[in-house]
Amino acid sequence: MKILIADNFPPSHQAKLRDGGHEVSFDPKLEGDALTAAIGDHEILIVRSTRVDAAVIDAAAALKLVIRAGAGTNTIDKAHAAANDIRVCNVPGANALAVAELAMGLIIAIDRRIADNVHDLRNRTWRKKLYGQARGLYGRNLGILGLGSIGLALAERAHAFGINVHVVAKANRAQSAAETIAACQVREVASIDELLKCCDIVSLHLPQTEQTEKMVNRDFLAKMQDGAILINTSRGGLVDEAALIEAIDGKGIRAGLDVYQNEPASSEASFESALAAHPAVCGTHHIGASTAQAQTAVADGVLRVIESHAQGHGQGALLHCVN
Amino acid sequence: MKILIADNFPPSHQAKLRDGGHEVSFDPKLEGDALTAAIGDHEILIVRSTRVDAAVIDAAAALKLVIRAGAGTNTIDKAHAAANDIRVCNVPGANALAVAELAMGLIIAIDRRIADNVHDLRNRTWRKKLYGQARGLYGRNLGILGLGSIGLALAERAHAFGINVHVVAKANRAQSAAETIAACQVREVASIDELLKCCDIVSLHLPQTEQTEKMVNRDFLAKMQDGAILINTSRGGLVDEAALIEAIDGKGIRAGLDVYQNEPASSEASFESALAAHPAVCGTHHIGASTAQAQTAVADGVLRVIESHAQGHGQGALLHCVN
Repeated sequence: MKILIADNFPPSHQAKLRDGGHEVSFDPKLEGDALTAAIGDHEILIVRSTRVDAAVIDAAAALKLVIRAGAGTNTIDKAHAAANDIRVCNVPGANALAVAELAMGLIIAIDRRIADNVHDLRNRTWRKKLYGQARGLYGRNLGILGLGSIGLALAERAHAFGINVHVVAKANRAQSAAETIAACQVREVASIDELLKCCDIVSLHLPQTEQTEKMVNRDFLAKMQDGAILINTSRGGLVDEAALIEAIDGKGIRAGLDVYQNEPASSEASFESALAAHPAVCGTHHIGASTAQAQTAVADGVLRVIESHAQGHGQGALLHCVN
Repeated sequence: MKILIADNFPPSHQAKLRDGGHEVSFDPKLEGDALTAAIGDHEILIVRSTRVDAAVIDAAAALKLVIRAGAGTNTIDKAHAAANDIRVCNVPGANALAVAELAMGLIIAIDRRIADNVHDLRNRTWRKKLYGQARGLYGRNLGILGLGSIGLALAERAHAFGINVHVVAKANRAQSAAETIAACQVREVASIDELLKCCDIVSLHLPQTEQTEKMVNRDFLAKMQDGAILINTSRGGLVDEAALIEAIDGKGIRAGLDVYQNEPASSEASFESALAAHPAVCGTHHIGASTAQAQTAVADGVLRVIESHAQGHGQGALLHCVN
């Protein structure tokens, strides 16, 4: 099959595809019009965060499958793909450990103010008293919104820290979730409101949909505890950023953020964001899934999707089809 | 009993001592000559990092017990105290969770370069590509040197991250250590050399003694893997700082440090340290034990030592006597 890879993809896994008899074009910088021009008669398109819009789909003569090497598919026009009988698949879960590691790292970094510590030491200033005022994490209460593979991985890690993990109760959990809930003594509360009331750390692990867009709004933030920690390693669109800045300044919310509204699509750019630059924010550059471990796991998953497509599975049986 | 507290100590626990009939003097800024002048006929002296030297001990008319509200007693002249029939006790383990939290936080912060991420975002610069090159932690190999309560707490946390934990084998482990070794599948290797060979993260959890002083020297660092992470939340004296700077510059060692040689005794000062200011170091201000959770746990432990002393235990039975 003709496969176009329009994003980074490990050389080891490109080699496996070629060894499997596929014709592979690799151009990690393709995007926009250049992608539209390049799609030609490729049957499979593999992307990470590169946008796949209607123009790309309309230009594709033989495209049958778009694979998102990662979890979030909000950068792909899934409906237009479906209307053209093109399947969109993702690789859920493979990023989970990397994102959970970052979420836990942001929680500790905020509790101890690690970035500010480093900044002062690099400026030859010793402030033991100022930085010796953390609360610590043992015995604290973490609310996880979204108990998919990332939320579950975070629950396991937080539980090992002696943090009490809370989620909103839900019927018919998957078995893996039910097992983690039991093993990590996760407490199920009745509603988001109740979770916000009892938790001093809240971490978002939800996809961006119409239902979740700007769910962290003024009302949500008003229900959070004063001085609580908010972690968002999911999507910038989940948060009303103006409301969050108000809550940071007004009630001492401290935010650990890996994602932002209007974050640059390019890998290096200037970025004017009052939130990302705020001194109470511990921010990273949308790197949650960007570890060597995660990229290997994702690439393994992409190969499994291609294999499932090659075996001629229909829409129902195709691995991780999302449209 | 007359008790002098020459360091910070929670008001709640001071109140408990007064309620117990003790006469408590609280002066957290006492040190040096002022402490020598103030010791008078106090029977018990409680300190954190405040130095208790021979002059203080010689000036004490009725001192029977010095309690270190924390673990490390290298700031107390234990031999001179013993020669004057004064017992020194510490509160081991109570700090363990807080220090382990910081050690784990430094490991993640180094893997993801969190402090550098924050610095760039505050300067309106987006560098997703640069920061998207972490290795991730799942499946990596951590060597813990020193398997006391802090080392054990770190082992539990690292194991939950899917990190393979290694220690140097030792006969006759305490039961708690043996249990954690089994539960966390800790791998016992024959020697420090073997540990340095197989681990890409090494964390020090040893007291500073004649045996451990500058144990992280040129030879030790030469045996570490290129690009490995070194964590020191124990004592600055364990590390030959000039040799570490050489290893950082020469073989890409990345260091997470909470302690330094010649770190300021005061809570705020200028601090000229080529190591602490180095761009490859993620440094904090000797805050490992400085969380509200740890301070409450330590203060609980101090009260237990005083109770054990009040019950007239001799040297053998006195709780946590170290001299």
